[in-house]
Amino acid sequence: MGNLEEFTLFDIKNGSYWISEDERLDYDGQFSFLMNYKIKDVLYMEQTPIQLITIVDTYTFGKTLTLDGGIQTTEKDGFIYNEMMAHVPLIIHPHAERVCVIGGGDGGVVSEVTKYSQVKQIDHIEIDEKVIQACRKFLPEIATNLDDPRIRFFYQDASQYIKETSEKYDVIIVDAADPMGPAKTLFTSEFLQDIAHALHDDGLMIIQSHPLFFHQEEARQVFQDTSNLFPITKMCSAVIPSYPGALQGFVLGSKKYHQLAIKNFNKDTKYVNQEILESCFAMPAFLQEFAPIIKR
Amino acid sequence: MGNLEEFTLFDIKNGSYWISEDERLDYDGQFSFLMNYKIKDVLYMEQTPIQLITIVDTYTFGKTLTLDGGIQTTEKDGFIYNEMMAHVPLIIHPHAERVCVIGGGDGGVVSEVTKYSQVKQIDHIEIDEKVIQACRKFLPEIATNLDDPRIRFFYQDASQYIKETSEKYDVIIVDAADPMGPAKTLFTSEFLQDIAHALHDDGLMIIQSHPLFFHQEEARQVFQDTSNLFPITKMCSAVIPSYPGALQGFVLGSKKYHQLAIKNFNKDTKYVNQEILESCFAMPAFLQEFAPIIKR
Repeated sequence: MGNLEEFTLFDIKNGSYWISEDERLDYDGQFSFLMNYKIKDVLYMEQTPIQLITIVDTYTFGKTLTLDGGIQTTEKDGFIYNEMMAHVPLIIHPHAERVCVIGGGDGGVVSEVTKYSQVKQIDHIEIDEKVIQACRKFLPEIATNLDDPRIRFFYQDASQYIKETSEKYDVIIVDAADPMGPAKTLFTSEFLQDIAHALHDDGLMIIQSHPLFFHQEEARQVFQDTSNLFPITKMCSAVIPSYPGALQGFVLGSKKYHQLAIKNFNKDTKYVNQEILESCFAMPAFLQEFAPIIKR
Repeated sequence: MGNLEEFTLFDIKNGSYWISEDERLDYDGQFSFLMNYKIKDVLYMEQTPIQLITIVDTYTFGKTLTLDGGIQTTEKDGFIYNEMMAHVPLIIHPHAERVCVIGGGDGGVVSEVTKYSQVKQIDHIEIDEKVIQACRKFLPEIATNLDDPRIRFFYQDASQYIKETSEKYDVIIVDAADPMGPAKTLFTSEFLQDIAHALHDDGLMIIQSHPLFFHQEEARQVFQDTSNLFPITKMCSAVIPSYPGALQGFVLGSKKYHQLAIKNFNKDTKYVNQEILESCFAMPAFLQEFAPIIKR
């Protein structure tokens, strides 16, 4: 790994390379909490016109995708996020046939969606084709099923795609990176409005809404914007150990459905099961502001 | 904080002091995952005959108790752990009057137990009186109610106390530190056997069973030892962001009761509520081995 020294992306400690995730507090804009992952190997690194993509192998979390240095998904715990994003909406919508996945270039969410035989079409909108190419090659544990013939790939800015498309979807899944880099247009109320427009009259969408322990203000914004546009707004959560704060929120915006359509979930999964689907909407007392909104 | 330099407990980075939590992997015994917390101030530090106690003020998690350098509880997320340990058993046992809390020198669990008016006696067994004294003084946000007249303090080794006591309890709560230091006798099957003996015929106990993402082997051992001694064994979990891996397990061993005795939890809490109590026993697919064991 000799030539890694030129990349400031990696820290060097005791002769080893590490990547870090941090939380900044407002008090002086400096880091006050760091999570550090020791690197075994660097598998891929490319600066595309859009972002710096790296896939590293870490000791604790296995192979790990970072975009502009921020951890997106890991071999050891990425399934938790990907399964929540795919199965929660597809178990609540009782007969989804047309699904759109926005972002999620690692291919994990799309691969989970292919487990539903009633789904006839999966449109995958990812701004950076290089991410998908790299994950196909280096992260086949996550990008497990990208050759499914139902998938159509669109390599373009999702906010533009969703504004201009004449397609109507049953389910839209917004698997956006945190809103610092190219994903920042995916957390605006204008984008959510276009999402609502691109859904059938009984359609629903799910969007990641930030880690809930450190980013309640951002989560509140997503929840509120969603509730302004959809008659039904619910938040669910899951624990993602590689993310600082760990408790990841997901907001569901739905035009009609909000209950589980089945009682015996039986897909081949590592995190989601019937019990998790039934309990993931429980919000702790300190997050009670995210109680379900169901307008009738 | 000039004299802190003599303590190897703290790292110095860019002129600031930090504390760390780590995970070791088996591959070479070295750290491969670190969580670093920047320190604002050191409030208390004392080497007792038992351990090194420190209370530091951190930027991200507020005031934080460490024992021999390991984080035990923090002002910002300690309530999650403390509320789970107290309310889960006291809501499942329909009429607990005599409660024993083992460990938990920060006073958080005992303070939660005092919220139950039907509880007549709370015996608190903590090996190191200095921990309780320090937390009373520096962590009143956690040790909120240690002057309650129902509390009796016993400053002694809990494994010895529980072996020799002639008391019979309705609920025993084992709030042990991780089994590296003085708490290692609190994770043996012999200790669990003594716990079972010190419980009434309809009594129940709860014990912290390690973070479930990194320490499944240790959690499995606690679960199995419990199921060898109790007719009912269940695991529940909660997210504790300051712990590496975040997903904390708790094992319930019960002689009779295993369902919630109420439908409208209404204690003054920040994490636990009725929804959390009803959902905390849901185990993800990758932890299905911890499904409830109910022998009839």
